[in-house]
Amino acid sequence: MRVAALASRLAARLEGPGDAEITRVAGLADADATCLAALFEPRFRAQAAQTAAAAVLTTPALARHLPPTTTRLVTDDARAAWGVALRLLHPRPAVAPPPPGVHPLACVDATAEVHPAARVGPFVVIGAGARIGADAALFAGVYVGAGAVVGPRATLHPGATLLDACEVGADAFIGSRAVIGSPGFGLDAAGRVPQIGRALIGERATLGAGTCVDRGTVGDTVVGADAHLDNLVQVGHNARVGAGAVLCGQVGLAGGAVVEAAAVLGGQAGVAGGAVVGAGARVAAQSGVTRDLTPGGTFSGHPAEDNRARLRRLARLKRLADP
Amino acid sequence: MRVAALASRLAARLEGPGDAEITRVAGLADADATCLAALFEPRFRAQAAQTAAAAVLTTPALARHLPPTTTRLVTDDARAAWGVALRLLHPRPAVAPPPPGVHPLACVDATAEVHPAARVGPFVVIGAGARIGADAALFAGVYVGAGAVVGPRATLHPGATLLDACEVGADAFIGSRAVIGSPGFGLDAAGRVPQIGRALIGERATLGAGTCVDRGTVGDTVVGADAHLDNLVQVGHNARVGAGAVLCGQVGLAGGAVVEAAAVLGGQAGVAGGAVVGAGARVAAQSGVTRDLTPGGTFSGHPAEDNRARLRRLARLKRLADP
Amino acid sequence: MRVAALASRLAARLEGPGDAEITRVAGLADADATCLAALFEPRFRAQAAQTAAAAVLTTPALARHLPPTTTRLVTDDARAAWGVALRLLHPRPAVAPPPPGVHPLACVDATAEVHPAARVGPFVVIGAGARIGADAALFAGVYVGAGAVVGPRATLHPGATLLDACEVGADAFIGSRAVIGSPGFGLDAAGRVPQIGRALIGERATLGAGTCVDRGTVGDTVVGADAHLDNLVQVGHNARVGAGAVLCGQVGLAGGAVVEAAAVLGGQAGVAGGAVVGAGARVAAQSGVTRDLTPGGTFSGHPAEDNRARLRRLARLKRLADP
Repeated sequence: MRVAALASRLAARLEGPGDAEITRVAGLADADATCLAALFEPRFRAQAAQTAAAAVLTTPALARHLPPTTTRLVTDDARAAWGVALRLLHPRPAVAPPPPGVHPLACVDATAEVHPAARVGPFVVIGAGARIGADAALFAGVYVGAGAVVGPRATLHPGATLLDACEVGADAFIGSRAVIGSPGFGLDAAGRVPQIGRALIGERATLGAGTCVDRGTVGDTVVGADAHLDNLVQVGHNARVGAGAVLCGQVGLAGGAVVEAAAVLGGQAGVAGGAVVGAGARVAAQSGVTRDLTPGGTFSGHPAEDNRARLRRLARLKRLADP
Repeated sequence: MRVAALASRLAARLEGPGDAEITRVAGLADADATCLAALFEPRFRAQAAQTAAAAVLTTPALARHLPPTTTRLVTDDARAAWGVALRLLHPRPAVAPPPPGVHPLACVDATAEVHPAARVGPFVVIGAGARIGADAALFAGVYVGAGAVVGPRATLHPGATLLDACEVGADAFIGSRAVIGSPGFGLDAAGRVPQIGRALIGERATLGAGTCVDRGTVGDTVVGADAHLDNLVQVGHNARVGAGAVLCGQVGLAGGAVVEAAAVLGGQAGVAGGAVVGAGARVAAQSGVTRDLTPGGTFSGHPAEDNRARLRRLARLKRLADP
Repeated sequence: MRVAALASRLAARLEGPGDAEITRVAGLADADATCLAALFEPRFRAQAAQTAAAAVLTTPALARHLPPTTTRLVTDDARAAWGVALRLLHPRPAVAPPPPGVHPLACVDATAEVHPAARVGPFVVIGAGARIGADAALFAGVYVGAGAVVGPRATLHPGATLLDACEVGADAFIGSRAVIGSPGFGLDAAGRVPQIGRALIGERATLGAGTCVDRGTVGDTVVGADAHLDNLVQVGHNARVGAGAVLCGQVGLAGGAVVEAAAVLGGQAGVAGGAVVGAGARVAAQSGVTRDLTPGGTFSGHPAEDNRARLRRLARLKRLADP
C-alpha cells in the first residue's frame, strides 16, 4: 500500500512524498524503506531521529523529532491510528491457526456438532454434545468438554480448556493454557462443594494465557462481551465481569465479585467476594477492593479508596514523618 | 426427592407443604417448581421475594423475605445445609470424567501399573513405573511422569502435570493445567540447582487450575491431607502446607515457607522462605508474611502483623493526617 | 564417590574419615550412611545433631552442632559447595526427558527441521519451518508454532507453548504449561491490537511452570541470557528482562517494562509499563514499581522507593501512632 493511500485510510495529514510502497509496520529502530513506524511517546524521540522508516505516523507535537526527509503521517490521535495501521497492514494473525477441518489426531465425540469450516488441530478433544461454530479455531491440545459451546470465529490457543457446559461467544479469543469452567473454591466442612453452574464468555471478549474463569456454584460466572482479561487473571465462581471491562495481568476476583461495565483494574489488583466495582471505575495496580466502589471513580490502596484522598493523606503523613 | 425427605436429610424445619418433587438446586432467580434454592445472605433478599422455587433453604432470620406460599427449610446453619443439599441432589460431578479404561490414544509405558478401573483419557502420558489407583480419573492431556503415583479416586483435570516420582493422594483433586513437581527456584552462580526431591499431595487435598507445587530441592514439598489450594497458587520447593489449610487464589509460598494445619491465607497473600504461619492462623488477602505468625491469630499487612493492632494504628494515622 | 574425593572437588576441609562411599545427597533427617547432607542454616541445628549421614557439608561456625563421629566437609561457602555437590552426585535431571528421536504420536510439519538428536515426546506439535536444535528435549504436549526456534540442549517441559516465530536459546529451560509468544494486552477501541513482534528467550535462561512471556506488539519481548523467572510470572509485550536478572514467583511486568541486567525482583512484585529497574537493583516482594529505579539500589513499597528511607519513615509513623 502506498503511503498516500495509507494516510487517507488513517485520516492523517501527509507531509512529504506519498509514493513509497509500505509492506509492513516496524519499530523506529528496526524499520527500513518498506516500513511504517510510529512516534507517539516522547521517550522514543532519540530513536525517531535515526529512523530509516519510509514513513512515520506521529502527532503534531512530535513530528519535528523525525529526520527532515522522512515522510510523516500526522494526526492528533496517532496511537489510535497506529492500531488501524496494524490491522490494515497485518490482517492475518501472527499466530497461524490450524487449517479448516478436523485433524485426524483430534478426538471428537460422535454427538458433537463441529461446523465444517471450523479449524480443529491435532490432540484436540471435543466432548459429547459440544458445538463448534463456523471458522472457530481450536489449536492443538484444546479441550472442549461435554455440552460446551464455541461460537463462530472464536479462537482457542494451544492447550486452552473449556469444561463441560461452558460457553465462549462469537469472535472471542482464549489464550494458551487458559482454563474456563473449572470447579471453583467453595468449601465447607466436607471439602469442595459441588459446582454445578457454568462459565460464560461473551462475544469478542478476550482472555490471556493461563487465565482461569471458574464455573458458578449455582448459576453462572459471566465475562461480558468485549471484556478483556490479560494473562494469569483469576475469576472466581459466580463473579461477573461487565461488558468492556479491562482486567490487567494477574488480577484476582474472588467468588461473587462484580466488576461492572467498562471498569478498569490495574495489574495484580484484587476484588473481595461480593464487592462491586462500579461501571467505568478505575482501580490502580495492586489495589485490594474490599467494599463497593462508586461508578466512574478512581481508586487505589488496600482497602481501595478514593485515589485523590488517599494520595493527599499519604503526602501529609510523609510530611509528618520526614520533617 | 420430596421436599419433606430433603428437609429431614438436611435436619431443617419444614414450613409449608412437603410433597413437591425436587430434582435440582438453582439460584433464587433461576429456580422453578422443581428446584430447591437458598437464602442465607441478606443481599439476596430482593431476589428471594420473587423466587419461583418449590422450596427455599434459609435461616430463621431471613425466612420472612420469601413469598408466603414458598415452602421453607429452616435451619440456623443454612450455608452448611446448602452444601449437603448440593451433594445430595447433584452426586455426579458437573465435569464428566473419561470412561473407565485406557483410551487408545493415551500413551502408557509398559512398566506403569494402571488399575483396570482407572479412567485414562486421550493424549494422556503415563511414564515408566508410574502407578494409577482404582477409579482415578486422568482427563485428556494429563502428564504423569516416571515413578509418579496417583491414588485411588483421585481426579486430574485436562492437562494437569504430575512430574516424575511425585504423588497425589487418594480422593485428591487437581485442576486443569496445574503443575506438580516442577523443578523449583533454587539458584546459585551456575544457574538452577538440581532439584531431586519430590512433591507430595495429600489425601482429599484439592489444587485449583493452573496452581504450581514445585518439587523439593532435597527432601519433599508437602501439601497435607484436606488442604485446599485455589487457582494460580504458587508453592515453592520444600514448602509445607499443613492438613486442612486453605490457600485462596494467587497465594504464593516461597521456597521453604510453612503453613501449618488449618491456617487460612486470603487471596494474593505471600509467605517468605522459612516463615511459619501458625496452625489455624488467618492471614488477610494481599498480606506479606515475613516472620513467623503465632497459631490462631489474625494477621494483615506487609510485613504481616496482628490485624487488630495494625488497624488501630492505621486509624490513628488517618486521624493524624485527616484532621 | 568417596568422601575424600568429594571434599577435594568441593574445595572443603575434610574433618574425619574420608573413605565412606557417597551415592547421593539427602536432607539431614533423611540421610543414611551412603549420603552427603548439609548444614548451612542455623535453624537446622537440631536435625543436624541427630543425622545419620555419612558426611555433612557445613561451615566452620556450624560444624560443632554435628554428631562427633560424623565426617565434616568444612568450607566458608557451604551453600555454594552444596550446589556443586548436587550437580556432581545427581548429574541426570530428576525429571526424565523423552528418548532421542521423534515419537510416532508427535505431529511434526514436513518443513520443520528437527535435529536427529532432539528428543520429541508424544502429542508434541511442531509447526511449519520451525527448527529444533541438537539434544533439545520437547516433553509431551509441547507446542512449537510455525517458524519458532528451539536452541540446542534447551528443555521444554510438558505442555509448554512456544508460539510462531518465537525463540528459545541454547540450554534454556521452560517449565510445564509456560506460554511464550502469546499476543499481548494492547487494547484500543476496536479490541486487541495485532501483535506482530516476537518473544525471545536467551541462552541458559529459565522460565518456571505457568510463566507467560507475551510477544511484542511491534518489535520483540526479550528475556536475556541467564535470566531466571520463577513460576506464574507475567512478562508483558515488549518488556525487556536483562541478562542474569531474577524474577521470583508471580512477578508481573506490564507491557514495555524494563528490568536491567542482574536485577532481582521479589515474589509478587510488579513493574509498570515503561518503568526501568536499574541494573543490579533489588526490589522487595510485593513492591509496585511505578518509576525508574537507580541501578544497584534496594527498593520496596508501592510506589517502590529507597528501602532504607521507607523503613525509616514507617518507623517514625509507628512511633507517632503507637505512643
